[in-house]
Amino acid sequence: MELTKKDLSMLHFDSDYMEGAHQEIMRRLMETNLEQTPGYGNDKYTVHAKQLIAEACGKPEAKIHFLVGGTQTNATVIDGLLAHHEGVLSADTGHINVHEAGAIEANGHKVLELPENNGKVMAEDVKRFIEDFYRDETYEHMVAPGMVYISNPTELGTLYTLEELKELSEVCRNANIPLYMDGARLGYALASDNYDVTLEDIAKYCDVFYIGGTKVGALFGEAVVVTRPELLKNFFPLSKQHGAVLAKGRMLGLQFETLFTDNLYIKIARHAIDMAMKLKKAFIDKGYRMWIDSVTNQQFVLLPNNEIDRLKQDASFELWGPRGEKETVVRFVTSWATKEEDVDKLISLL
Amino acid sequence: MELTKKDLSMLHFDSDYMEGAHQEIMRRLMETNLEQTPGYGNDKYTVHAKQLIAEACGKPEAKIHFLVGGTQTNATVIDGLLAHHEGVLSADTGHINVHEAGAIEANGHKVLELPENNGKVMAEDVKRFIEDFYRDETYEHMVAPGMVYISNPTELGTLYTLEELKELSEVCRNANIPLYMDGARLGYALASDNYDVTLEDIAKYCDVFYIGGTKVGALFGEAVVVTRPELLKNFFPLSKQHGAVLAKGRMLGLQFETLFTDNLYIKIARHAIDMAMKLKKAFIDKGYRMWIDSVTNQQFVLLPNNEIDRLKQDASFELWGPRGEKETVVRFVTSWATKEEDVDKLISLL
Amino acid sequence: MELTKKDLSMLHFDSDYMEGAHQEIMRRLMETNLEQTPGYGNDKYTVHAKQLIAEACGKPEAKIHFLVGGTQTNATVIDGLLAHHEGVLSADTGHINVHEAGAIEANGHKVLELPENNGKVMAEDVKRFIEDFYRDETYEHMVAPGMVYISNPTELGTLYTLEELKELSEVCRNANIPLYMDGARLGYALASDNYDVTLEDIAKYCDVFYIGGTKVGALFGEAVVVTRPELLKNFFPLSKQHGAVLAKGRMLGLQFETLFTDNLYIKIARHAIDMAMKLKKAFIDKGYRMWIDSVTNQQFVLLPNNEIDRLKQDASFELWGPRGEKETVVRFVTSWATKEEDVDKLISLL
Amino acid sequence: MELTKKDLSMLHFDSDYMEGAHQEIMRRLMETNLEQTPGYGNDKYTVHAKQLIAEACGKPEAKIHFLVGGTQTNATVIDGLLAHHEGVLSADTGHINVHEAGAIEANGHKVLELPENNGKVMAEDVKRFIEDFYRDETYEHMVAPGMVYISNPTELGTLYTLEELKELSEVCRNANIPLYMDGARLGYALASDNYDVTLEDIAKYCDVFYIGGTKVGALFGEAVVVTRPELLKNFFPLSKQHGAVLAKGRMLGLQFETLFTDNLYIKIARHAIDMAMKLKKAFIDKGYRMWIDSVTNQQFVLLPNNEIDRLKQDASFELWGPRGEKETVVRFVTSWATKEEDVDKLISLL
Repeated sequence: MELTKKDLSMLHFDSDYMEGAHQEIMRRLMETNLEQTPGYGNDKYTVHAKQLIAEACGKPEAKIHFLVGGTQTNATVIDGLLAHHEGVLSADTGHINVHEAGAIEANGHKVLELPENNGKVMAEDVKRFIEDFYRDETYEHMVAPGMVYISNPTELGTLYTLEELKELSEVCRNANIPLYMDGARLGYALASDNYDVTLEDIAKYCDVFYIGGTKVGALFGEAVVVTRPELLKNFFPLSKQHGAVLAKGRMLGLQFETLFTDNLYIKIARHAIDMAMKLKKAFIDKGYRMWIDSVTNQQFVLLPNNEIDRLKQDASFELWGPRGEKETVVRFVTSWATKEEDVDKLISLL
Repeated sequence: MELTKKDLSMLHFDSDYMEGAHQEIMRRLMETNLEQTPGYGNDKYTVHAKQLIAEACGKPEAKIHFLVGGTQTNATVIDGLLAHHEGVLSADTGHINVHEAGAIEANGHKVLELPENNGKVMAEDVKRFIEDFYRDETYEHMVAPGMVYISNPTELGTLYTLEELKELSEVCRNANIPLYMDGARLGYALASDNYDVTLEDIAKYCDVFYIGGTKVGALFGEAVVVTRPELLKNFFPLSKQHGAVLAKGRMLGLQFETLFTDNLYIKIARHAIDMAMKLKKAFIDKGYRMWIDSVTNQQFVLLPNNEIDRLKQDASFELWGPRGEKETVVRFVTSWATKEEDVDKLISLL
Repeated sequence: MELTKKDLSMLHFDSDYMEGAHQEIMRRLMETNLEQTPGYGNDKYTVHAKQLIAEACGKPEAKIHFLVGGTQTNATVIDGLLAHHEGVLSADTGHINVHEAGAIEANGHKVLELPENNGKVMAEDVKRFIEDFYRDETYEHMVAPGMVYISNPTELGTLYTLEELKELSEVCRNANIPLYMDGARLGYALASDNYDVTLEDIAKYCDVFYIGGTKVGALFGEAVVVTRPELLKNFFPLSKQHGAVLAKGRMLGLQFETLFTDNLYIKIARHAIDMAMKLKKAFIDKGYRMWIDSVTNQQFVLLPNNEIDRLKQDASFELWGPRGEKETVVRFVTSWATKEEDVDKLISLL
Repeated sequence: MELTKKDLSMLHFDSDYMEGAHQEIMRRLMETNLEQTPGYGNDKYTVHAKQLIAEACGKPEAKIHFLVGGTQTNATVIDGLLAHHEGVLSADTGHINVHEAGAIEANGHKVLELPENNGKVMAEDVKRFIEDFYRDETYEHMVAPGMVYISNPTELGTLYTLEELKELSEVCRNANIPLYMDGARLGYALASDNYDVTLEDIAKYCDVFYIGGTKVGALFGEAVVVTRPELLKNFFPLSKQHGAVLAKGRMLGLQFETLFTDNLYIKIARHAIDMAMKLKKAFIDKGYRMWIDSVTNQQFVLLPNNEIDRLKQDASFELWGPRGEKETVVRFVTSWATKEEDVDKLISLL
């Protein structure tokens, strides 16, 4: 799968982790490169980044932890939140249920599938699951619902409304189980058009969530925000045990300090949204059918298979799966680094 | 544990992961920053780095995998090598036995302790353990010796001689269990004075080992070399399950490509050795007793406690543990980034 | 949930593990009670029982292991058969997926759900799952199908036909993954009317299966038959690690020796079938609708809720779940120990 | 290892689980065999047995759970008590550290070894371990001491004095970690000569312990006593997940009800002690050296190797390990079922 010379002239819309980091992050990494700091996150950049994030969340008491990647973060957090006999409720399309190579189960926990609703978990489905569970006389032989996992944006690029988030939070708090949000692409939610949910709302309604860096401008890194710190004690040794502690932890601090200075995280995410919306409009204008009405940086379109074959010569993107014999759902992803001229070229090819 | 202004004028000999990366690595990261590549190590830099390492090992058939950190690497590799009923033989001082927060056990495996010999595992101890094990009538009730873990340099800065390595390899191959070397600081072994073991020797005698990047010039990253690929199949999903796969995998490839071009890995490690030897000579010349005769970048000295208190005002280093009431073993670590003027200043303080 | 005096006159059709053991087993346990034998299954009764079972299976080379209970057996066998990155395909109604408190996941493995077809896994669904899996470009990020779990009779009392079993076996062997049958109630399959599958067929088409004792006449105990011993090496330490080894192992040997002498296992299972068929016929004759057409010892009937309330005063049985507002599916279970007079009494109550 | 005809005339002192169950237990099992009861311990015998044990412990508020075997019990209890980052302190000779095939580690936890003192863990060693641990600046990289495991009698047949137990309890409570006693042979402690510790003392000083049935008169079964129930919540699903729940749970209840009626548990244990003391006295009178001064049912003697060869023709016992070239430590075990004539015969052979 190495890129060939042909690739160099290709237009890439495969994913949002094809480039390195935002230039401001690279500048900071260079600038501080030979400074000496203590390891494992005990450095001033990490301390400052935590302050900035807690402030942005409106939660000074929140605990912030930096990990390297998304699967690692989900596995560590979920392992920390669940008791032995508990599992995690997730949409069947949830990343933890499909694309993490069984990391949740490898740590001993079952993913309890709920039917996805445009990629989302609905509060009423959670409520019904919990009610049905405890109504079953044999429930002690079954895996108890111990927390709810949602991703926002979802794997399908859709977003939870404020109302949906409130309802989920209410159901979870009534059931005394934590609500956890996977924010691998959180920036692309917060920066999307007319989105009625803020970072403060998320911090208010989620017990734990993470702010994704890898897909939004960082080389790597995810910031876990624990708004109810009593739920995740001893996080350092837990992370260490999960192989999730970076020796040169300041690189995480530095990157998030940069992203949370001058609103950079949202600004660069906004660019990806602009590019995605331009692309979406072009698809619609040219008469293509969108498979999902996504307002974020992932756009899913139904394309005729022969059109796909033609496009593949000049552009790369992901095949999401066939729909009938002649059409396929295709995913185009923009990012903080997408060049407008590439979007224009792609549009001209349609 | 944040650094204060006072710290800025401090001399730091705490560890070998206090700085960022070698300037050549930083240059390459900057240079390629906005290139688009496929994720998860399917990029040209990673492919090239693997070739360079396989060549340097004299093992074109070896499989190379890049992971992020040492604990993660040990946990993933050991989990992949052991059957359920097997444990890993290690010196009681081994990093996996002491400083990885139980990551081996968290994956279901017991660390079978052997007495350390200057931080090393001796072939005869392995042999005796295995013989005693299978001589015990109840051995099926016990954890079977399933592999041997060694670190080189060891946690005490000592090195395996070629003869010791050969003997370990022979014992392991006779017992049909793999020999695995943790090379978190491997550069500091290979670059040390008069060391009779080469990278090719290591590739010859070890079934799996890793070449440490984090402590030898990289921002992060460890290169796992599997010289008998049949022992570690399906490494990608295994790593993914361990949360050990980096989305922007090219950063690992790029760093190791750089380190294995023009012998950079050894050259920068050599600098750390020079600094360590200068320091060691100064200690000895000034009449201090070395606790261990280390030829690598970690130097252990017995210091009077009042001398430690005095030094602490100007230098930072790790207390390794008290020896009697008036003295303590102290560890000084140099690295590829240590400034000679800092070594000179430290010496002048003694 | 203690039984009250009222209970003593109740008719119990809750499950097939409400009594102790068949009298012949009790007799043998008494008779040999003070004999001294080595522990952990190294006794003559266990050796003999293994021979009897291997013969009954027509597989002299098969390895037989005795464990205590069903969940323990499934967890141990599945843990032994799967590699880290693999999961177990199962009907969504499969016992391992629903009623084992997450034991499969607790050992690190995902249950990959297939839609049940009358409680059964269909070969074509397995085939499609495997094909779809390896066609997906991201399959290395997903849990690989590593084996197939079926139960026979299923949790719904249905049976695999010889043809269905052959097809499953073929699909599994083509994909090089083992087929495992949970035979917790296997006797009630083999003894059912006109069943075209024999124990030899099962041994021919399954790579591993177990013959349930707990529900078919034993105090406890399940006999694992490994027809391809190379798939499950080191089973003793694996079982020990799972807490699944009985110190006084001869009790397992003795019970299975008894069950496999003079065809006792089938004879006593036949009684349960006779009782179940009598009950089924009565339900149908009286105009009730069977929810599932079961030929084994579990009978599922749709009953009006007010009828259930009335019956509950004299009989105990399991509510399987509501169907609409006025009816509920109810399960009646017979066993080797069911008294015909109790069946007659129940029928007279309908 | 099957017994041959020769064996039938052999004297067996290998272990305390060579026979079935005490006749009173067998009688009760026969008597109740065809009664119908709910499964999984929801029966009247189990409820009554729990009451009897709680009363005998002087702890009406204690929670009692019945499991099948010792390794299973240790694995389940320890898994339930420890947090992810914690390990269990144990004597290096502890059963969990040596003879349970890594069951503790298989559940993710490290056994933290303390040097044994006649098979015992000393309070001062626990105290020192904990102090040293938290004094180490890197303790968050290490496995935290999360509980203490002791066995009483120990694997060497020795006993904790009341004073030793008090001290251990005090150290544990000061450190806020539970003290857990493995009582696989507890009866043989309580029934030994002049022992100053009662069951009530154990219930007072241990947070969790188990009363062994398998080795003291039962077919199988261990009664876990949780004197601080808040430490082990959700024990049923935890046990189920561990494959440790018996479908016909009443068999456990019945056996313990019998053992705790009319002081049967102590009476039958007393017989084993009488036999062991007779044997011990004979060894000493005949000039043999006891390797350990055991007052319980395991006796360890130093025997010349040629004497062992001679004895082996008429008696079976366990070789505990060589001491020099000419002598070996040998273990003789008596039980509730040992016949005095067998002891006399063995003595006559010395």
